[in-house]
Amino acid sequence: MNTRRVAEKLGLSPERLGQLQGSIIRRSSWPQPRLLRFDKSASGVESGTVIFDNSEVVFGYPKIRRALVLEPAIKRFFPERVAVEEKMNGYNVRVASIDGDVVALTRGGYICPYSTEVAQRILPEEAFQDHPDMILCGEMVGPENPYVPKDIYPTDSIDFYLFDVAKKNSKGTLGVCKTREISEEFGIRTAAFFGEFKPDRAYVEITRIIKQLGKKGREGVVMKDPENLRPSIKYTCSESNCSDLASGFQYYNDYALDFFVSRAVREGFQSMEWKESEEERRKRAQRIGESILLPLVDTVERKMKGEQIVQEVQIRVKSIQTARDFEHHLRRSGTKAIFDQPEPYDDGYLVRIAKLVMSTNDKTQALLEGEMW
Amino acid sequence: MNTRRVAEKLGLSPERLGQLQGSIIRRSSWPQPRLLRFDKSASGVESGTVIFDNSEVVFGYPKIRRALVLEPAIKRFFPERVAVEEKMNGYNVRVASIDGDVVALTRGGYICPYSTEVAQRILPEEAFQDHPDMILCGEMVGPENPYVPKDIYPTDSIDFYLFDVAKKNSKGTLGVCKTREISEEFGIRTAAFFGEFKPDRAYVEITRIIKQLGKKGREGVVMKDPENLRPSIKYTCSESNCSDLASGFQYYNDYALDFFVSRAVREGFQSMEWKESEEERRKRAQRIGESILLPLVDTVERKMKGEQIVQEVQIRVKSIQTARDFEHHLRRSGTKAIFDQPEPYDDGYLVRIAKLVMSTNDKTQALLEGEMW
Repeated sequence: MNTRRVAEKLGLSPERLGQLQGSIIRRSSWPQPRLLRFDKSASGVESGTVIFDNSEVVFGYPKIRRALVLEPAIKRFFPERVAVEEKMNGYNVRVASIDGDVVALTRGGYICPYSTEVAQRILPEEAFQDHPDMILCGEMVGPENPYVPKDIYPTDSIDFYLFDVAKKNSKGTLGVCKTREISEEFGIRTAAFFGEFKPDRAYVEITRIIKQLGKKGREGVVMKDPENLRPSIKYTCSESNCSDLASGFQYYNDYALDFFVSRAVREGFQSMEWKESEEERRKRAQRIGESILLPLVDTVERKMKGEQIVQEVQIRVKSIQTARDFEHHLRRSGTKAIFDQPEPYDDGYLVRIAKLVMSTNDKTQALLEGEMW
Repeated sequence: MNTRRVAEKLGLSPERLGQLQGSIIRRSSWPQPRLLRFDKSASGVESGTVIFDNSEVVFGYPKIRRALVLEPAIKRFFPERVAVEEKMNGYNVRVASIDGDVVALTRGGYICPYSTEVAQRILPEEAFQDHPDMILCGEMVGPENPYVPKDIYPTDSIDFYLFDVAKKNSKGTLGVCKTREISEEFGIRTAAFFGEFKPDRAYVEITRIIKQLGKKGREGVVMKDPENLRPSIKYTCSESNCSDLASGFQYYNDYALDFFVSRAVREGFQSMEWKESEEERRKRAQRIGESILLPLVDTVERKMKGEQIVQEVQIRVKSIQTARDFEHHLRRSGTKAIFDQPEPYDDGYLVRIAKLVMSTNDKTQALLEGEMW
């Protein structure tokens, strides 16, 4: 790697880059190609930013902040117009071609072997032949998404939805227009686009969209500046908040505490902003309460029957090696999982994975034995 | 203070005591008498343990652990018999006579001027004349309890309920029998005693008691070893868990995150252990959901109307100086509060206090202005 050139691309002095290499910049030698990744944000460089051995830089995707009260947020952050897209519920990858090989990077800047195989299968090769510097930023969604498996999208496996494009070695992303252009040029599926609105109509329209998405179990929307000059903002449906609560409480001891409280708080603000009737609030309270209570009871009852509490997911792969590599990838991310024997399926393999939630297992077992909290 | 004697009482070497004085043992010079307090537990000494200048030691009250699944906890920790008392919902004080003056110590080992005035008014002087080494451990409850004001007890102000007695300079407490003896001898009110049960009956009986207490809005029970040889265990009513959730979510940004999740988790375990029907679970979920949603909405709506979010409490004092001292005491405990002018009331004064919850105020205001979470 050419330290001076890389430092310049990152907007750092070579000395600062050297310092960071000793601390928050970490090497990842597997899978190929080798890279350095920013484990945290530093000196204005997003966490997840990756430097490849050939000195190419893929910047981390900027964190999208969340509005809790929609109307003032729209007026404040999008005084002209706002473009509204669906926020897909899956996991975020950046796909780029490095020395001729397409790789998919996780948020944290690792190459994910499974996502890479999916990206190579789904995405048209010409896209990277025509635009070798292009980075496709998108969401991997579907029931064979091993992080957030969801049955709500039109795929029985996993699919990639483009939501932004970026360029290697450049900070920032190219925004709504360029994304639509690339999508049309190469036939890449994008997150649904709901239109552009002026601020006086936007709140009403987005609220209508949010309610419709909620009924379909979808997650929410991302609001973007059509000119790509302002940061994007996200906002989610009540049903998605509650479905998050439900997954969280099922594995109550393995989730961070703020996961629970943040979702409850979103519900309070939405109910206030929507000026709900007593009856509507009663229903929302019921939804929240059931999202908390029922998964908890289910987990405790399953443990009482002697079951191991696991999160069952599955992936479909072309090559058995990808499954083996993904097992290694999960392990290095700190997830303990048991991989079943791959079963032949179409022209590839189906692999069932049991992700272990050890903390919830152990705690529940101890409490059932009368141990104290 | 006589370092060697004090160290011996604490079960520490004089050197270890010296080390701790530089770190977790803190001096508190106000109000009189001056004392040293254990800010945390260390070397087997409970946090809140106090050493007075006259070398007398008042040990911290041991933390009572909580059962989440009652039946196995009873069988495991009380294999012979279990005594069941009501757990009062207020704040815990230790009252002792030091050099002839009755003082009330908070859990943390501070002298609370308000609790001290209350203790001096309510508790019979003879108790400490006859037993100068006695420590009365009890709960201050009622609507004029400035920490957890509750209307559910038979007082319109504040009352002291004895739940244990201890001796100065001795670790541990004297337990159920001695507490009843002292209560009878001096006419001191105690937490309700529900009886002693063998393990085969205890679960059914305690569950019946818990359901009854829940209907009355009471907190729960403490289970104790009648022989005082084993640590006590607490268990709470669903209604109390939900009422905690409600107070927490009203001031959602000022509470610790585990406060919320721990209470939700208790509900899941209780529902499981009680083998509730679908209808019972639906009702419990409604109760949980409303405890979360309605206080949140209320807080946001009040802030939207321009109200300051405060927690309003009140105290009644004999002497205006006690109110002033309590203001100082709250401030040193890190609570910001606005004290109204004392109003004459009977032979004393009523003081209304607005406790500020700055974090919830500021966060709610910012979110209402469209700021991001």
